[in-house]
Amino acid sequence: MAERESQIVLGLDPDPAALWPADGPEPTEGSPAERAAEAVLAHCRALIGATAEACVAVKLQLACFERLGAPGRVALEAVAAYARARGLLVIADGKRGDISVSAAAYAQALVGSIETPFGTVQGLGADLLTVNPLMGRDALQPFVSAAREAGAGVLVLVRTSNPGAADIEDLELQGGGPVWERLATIVAELGGPGVGEAGLSDVGAVVGATVPGHLARARELMASATFLLPGVGAQGGRVEDLAPAFWPGRAGGLITASRSIANAHTVAGGEPATAARAEAERLRESAWALSEGPFSTS
Amino acid sequence: MAERESQIVLGLDPDPAALWPADGPEPTEGSPAERAAEAVLAHCRALIGATAEACVAVKLQLACFERLGAPGRVALEAVAAYARARGLLVIADGKRGDISVSAAAYAQALVGSIETPFGTVQGLGADLLTVNPLMGRDALQPFVSAAREAGAGVLVLVRTSNPGAADIEDLELQGGGPVWERLATIVAELGGPGVGEAGLSDVGAVVGATVPGHLARARELMASATFLLPGVGAQGGRVEDLAPAFWPGRAGGLITASRSIANAHTVAGGEPATAARAEAERLRESAWALSEGPFSTS
Repeated sequence: MAERESQIVLGLDPDPAALWPADGPEPTEGSPAERAAEAVLAHCRALIGATAEACVAVKLQLACFERLGAPGRVALEAVAAYARARGLLVIADGKRGDISVSAAAYAQALVGSIETPFGTVQGLGADLLTVNPLMGRDALQPFVSAAREAGAGVLVLVRTSNPGAADIEDLELQGGGPVWERLATIVAELGGPGVGEAGLSDVGAVVGATVPGHLARARELMASATFLLPGVGAQGGRVEDLAPAFWPGRAGGLITASRSIANAHTVAGGEPATAARAEAERLRESAWALSEGPFSTS
Repeated sequence: MAERESQIVLGLDPDPAALWPADGPEPTEGSPAERAAEAVLAHCRALIGATAEACVAVKLQLACFERLGAPGRVALEAVAAYARARGLLVIADGKRGDISVSAAAYAQALVGSIETPFGTVQGLGADLLTVNPLMGRDALQPFVSAAREAGAGVLVLVRTSNPGAADIEDLELQGGGPVWERLATIVAELGGPGVGEAGLSDVGAVVGATVPGHLARARELMASATFLLPGVGAQGGRVEDLAPAFWPGRAGGLITASRSIANAHTVAGGEPATAARAEAERLRESAWALSEGPFSTS
């Protein structure tokens, strides 16, 4: 992040019906799934190519690739490899969560590998993966352990950016405080053994940028967590409101933007790639300037 | 269920290192992932073939297929097709949950399809899918809508079977009652418009068989929900304790068993297929007998 002076995460949630105009000829061979996956891959490459210098990571929305079946998985792996080659971290946004043995299997799929009698099968090789904590500590621990072993990290859903977050995450508990604060204390607890030299842990949190009032409290409860901050742009969140995320240093906050970058040309006009690059750069600059405070360690 | 006199769901969570001995030659062509996926498919077919008559559905643990990459997705689709051909319902156990547009994408992947400029891409075609409600109503509604449109259903995590369920799901709320009861009321609310002639809704719930004390209360709160009951066997739950699940009729409870069926031969001895068939039949019979009560509608 220091090298690139960026906290911006390019969100990739490609819809085959809303891709950038293809640079070359449209795919004509193969099944609908194969052709759609090929077009999605080309789109993601173009978007990464246009914005990589302003970004520090890509966030792959797994749902968008899963709906294209096996060809979608091939495209997912190719997009991850392309992003990595452009110097970007890869965040697998799958929000998985399951009982221990199944959580371990998801971790193998996304961040580790599995030994089989037929040889080792490598997973996606993500640097960070989003996980769902509803099922409790024993559903999170396999993700944390596998990520720690792989030199990767997890981002636990704590207070999401959608209106429905109020239904469960915001419920007040008998002992005081809402459910999401309890999730935050679990994040801090699991992340304790994973705090590195920069003061940040390998267990981070997803905290929506749409309710900035929660950020200071979230930082109080999770001093060492990297915050993934969705909701800027299309969902209404503003970079200017995110200062508390950067208290432990600039790397404390990752700002994700998807549609506001990919669709920047629909607002600004011009070529999609040019508009996307300008919007990513605008976000980068405003976040980097904002996070240059007395609290910054970098 | 009435036709088969069964409430048993065969859980499929194949580990390439712990498959039944292959019926034919081991796969020797292709990458480790391709060979592992081929072996997994053969194992699942054998397991389904041995037990289908005692079961009403298969539950596919998506994590176990995802860790085999694109070949895993091909195997997943083939297992689903094989189960369907044997007259079984297909439950996609992925515990997905995300903001609305991503939830809709997951629904396309599992229960619907997506229209692309390259043609329609069919999803897995599951009959039921498990979903995670942490993010609230707007994260559940796209699953419910897509399932309803496809004539399928969803099973919402309410009170899971793992010890960690106590961490969040069991927390007492200020208004009274634990978090899981709030989840149960959301299930009942979303399921209201989906109650069919048999008195059961297309919105069901996952309620662990390991804490049978919760079942009566869960049924009180979700009168029309089908309960998916994991945790029987390897996790310690007993069929005998599940009576409240069957209050609205025999179809009110689906009992899942994975390792206790697949590994029955390690306890009972003999051929894996023979032991699995016997164990599935034993479960079927005891559940069917148990659910023949004054509350039964079938």
